[in-house]
Amino acid sequence: MAAAFSRPVFFPSTFSYNGNRYHGRIKIKINATSSTKVKTLNEIAGAGKGSSSLATSTEINHLSQEQIRQRIPTKKQLVDPYRQGLIIERGVGYRQTVVVRSYEVGPYKTATLESLLNLFQETALNHVWMSGLLSNGFGATHGMVRNNLIWVVSRMQVQVDHYPIWGEVLEIDTWVGASGKNGMRRDWLIRSQATGITYARATSTWVMMNEKTRRLSKMPEEVRDEISPWFIDKRAINEDVPEKIVKLDDNARYVNSDLKPKRSDLDMNHHVNNVNYVRWMLETTPDKFLESHQLSGIVLEYRRECGSSDRVQSLCQPDEDETLTNGVEQSLLKNMVLTPRIMEGNGYLGPLDVKSYGYTHLLQIKGDSKNEEIVRGRTRWRKTLSTLPYSS
Amino acid sequence: MAAAFSRPVFFPSTFSYNGNRYHGRIKIKINATSSTKVKTLNEIAGAGKGSSSLATSTEINHLSQEQIRQRIPTKKQLVDPYRQGLIIERGVGYRQTVVVRSYEVGPYKTATLESLLNLFQETALNHVWMSGLLSNGFGATHGMVRNNLIWVVSRMQVQVDHYPIWGEVLEIDTWVGASGKNGMRRDWLIRSQATGITYARATSTWVMMNEKTRRLSKMPEEVRDEISPWFIDKRAINEDVPEKIVKLDDNARYVNSDLKPKRSDLDMNHHVNNVNYVRWMLETTPDKFLESHQLSGIVLEYRRECGSSDRVQSLCQPDEDETLTNGVEQSLLKNMVLTPRIMEGNGYLGPLDVKSYGYTHLLQIKGDSKNEEIVRGRTRWRKTLSTLPYSS
Repeated sequence: MAAAFSRPVFFPSTFSYNGNRYHGRIKIKINATSSTKVKTLNEIAGAGKGSSSLATSTEINHLSQEQIRQRIPTKKQLVDPYRQGLIIERGVGYRQTVVVRSYEVGPYKTATLESLLNLFQETALNHVWMSGLLSNGFGATHGMVRNNLIWVVSRMQVQVDHYPIWGEVLEIDTWVGASGKNGMRRDWLIRSQATGITYARATSTWVMMNEKTRRLSKMPEEVRDEISPWFIDKRAINEDVPEKIVKLDDNARYVNSDLKPKRSDLDMNHHVNNVNYVRWMLETTPDKFLESHQLSGIVLEYRRECGSSDRVQSLCQPDEDETLTNGVEQSLLKNMVLTPRIMEGNGYLGPLDVKSYGYTHLLQIKGDSKNEEIVRGRTRWRKTLSTLPYSS
Repeated sequence: MAAAFSRPVFFPSTFSYNGNRYHGRIKIKINATSSTKVKTLNEIAGAGKGSSSLATSTEINHLSQEQIRQRIPTKKQLVDPYRQGLIIERGVGYRQTVVVRSYEVGPYKTATLESLLNLFQETALNHVWMSGLLSNGFGATHGMVRNNLIWVVSRMQVQVDHYPIWGEVLEIDTWVGASGKNGMRRDWLIRSQATGITYARATSTWVMMNEKTRRLSKMPEEVRDEISPWFIDKRAINEDVPEKIVKLDDNARYVNSDLKPKRSDLDMNHHVNNVNYVRWMLETTPDKFLESHQLSGIVLEYRRECGSSDRVQSLCQPDEDETLTNGVEQSLLKNMVLTPRIMEGNGYLGPLDVKSYGYTHLLQIKGDSKNEEIVRGRTRWRKTLSTLPYSS
């Protein structure tokens, strides 16, 4: 495994529970021996049937002010009416209905990639909330806390076939699975609620790090016992061999230096949010190209966190044969294959299936002696038919 | 009224309906004479009772692809289950339940001001959606379209007593009212759903502009007849005389020049979103001050829109006696009045009631001969007890 990761750079542990998770008056003790716990969790999970187990009014009297405000489930529940969430997949998967809000769309009135990443983060956290086991922050499992372990994200991949539009009702499914011996996958599917058509797929890989030594760690047996009952052997994206991302150097064609995290870029973990990484990458991609292309996929490989005082450099390089960024539309048109494609489901016409264009990205901290990688990225793009000039 | 406004700079017309509003297969003709229409709208509005009027399955067959995806109400409805919205106030006000999402909070785990502004925009639009009369974009009323009129926002004021926390369930109420002879107010209240405590209040003023001449316009009788049935004589913020905001000049203490709108800053109207104005203002406020203060109120006076190719300068000036920005904590402590205040409702402890600090702001486009004002601002702040350093 590559250079040391630091604290979670994308979003908090996708799984976080520990015995004494409430700071309020209620303290719920979960059997701490891993085997007992697994069984209990598994049993509570049930078979996806049954009604919600919201706190009763008597229980509410004992809740802390913060709990009342947050309405964090005090036990596992199958339905979350506030977040429009639902436990699915035999009690271990999660589905949430969301509406694309007016401020989540860009100039094309379609949801931005940033909005989709935000929704991935939100549904992952709500999945854990539904378990009734979330500590109020960036927690970890009981076994992880005992071992000083935290989750760090190492890889994230997103494929977008269709961008949802303003006001569209979506169903987002998310679940976790095994990743090798020591990791965990978290996957997502975004579907149109009205048509059932899948718009986007995503997968992420998580590994464990010792919070004190800042070194990656194997997954202890007791932690595996805790989390493995939640694993589902299903993949949002089938990928036999993960694509390798080459490391760019100073010869990259586009360079944006001296990017500085702003106050508004920091998340509740006081780190630069993953969404900002993507924004920095896309801002380095030439306007001329962005005006006529739509992102169809992105892969991110995380190397280290970025703090609020770091100065970041963003590099980006188009693939060899994709020299349309200098405005030579001639070569572009020659390369295009305009094949209308009927998407799965109800004869719905998908976007035109055109040649895909690739870019390689790198965000790094420029040091005096050596640079430190933050994240490598690969983006795939398809040509859009309408262009929307960004600046005159 | 001051210099010419341009197209809506904050959010689309808060009111937008016209006769042929669907681009899909369904065309619903609303009686076009204003008096008839008013009556119809008023009648449909009802008294806040009755069930939702969602499209039946037969109707759905006739819906366009876009309509199916968006699930825009085809007629006025009293309940929107997707957006968790509800028509209130005798059929003309709107209430939406929202949960503060993980990506809407900042380093303190409380919702950012930007998130609250986004939610104001969203609920205003959903209010219009519930009317069943929203055109798919930045529409106007039938009478406004006939007169080439669009809404432009001229003023926005927000007061935040408490910032909601991550995961908190909120109820946001919004309604419209008269503003002088030719304007419209839109107000909002944000309450904790669990406790009923009001966290934030906001009010905005809208005027009409002729889309062709780009001049402000009186409100035509027929437009007044259309919209006045929706007016509620209730104010979120009581303010007898609106605070005047002085215009800053080059002598302002803090200046941030050459701000450039990014692609991600543009909304679906291809303009810089209001939220970015606030962000630019706050970024110019010194870090040292922001680290130990929380924004309690903001007033924005809009002068002109900002396009994607404009270069913006942000000026900001602390009030005379508030020279704590240079790090002299001594003077700050002397000025503080630490009065714990019991908030309305259940003995809930509000934030400490401390001296309020003020800043004046200006965003302008720097021209060769003269500068053009975009927006003037006033912010009020209260001291926070815990400080969270932003950068080391």
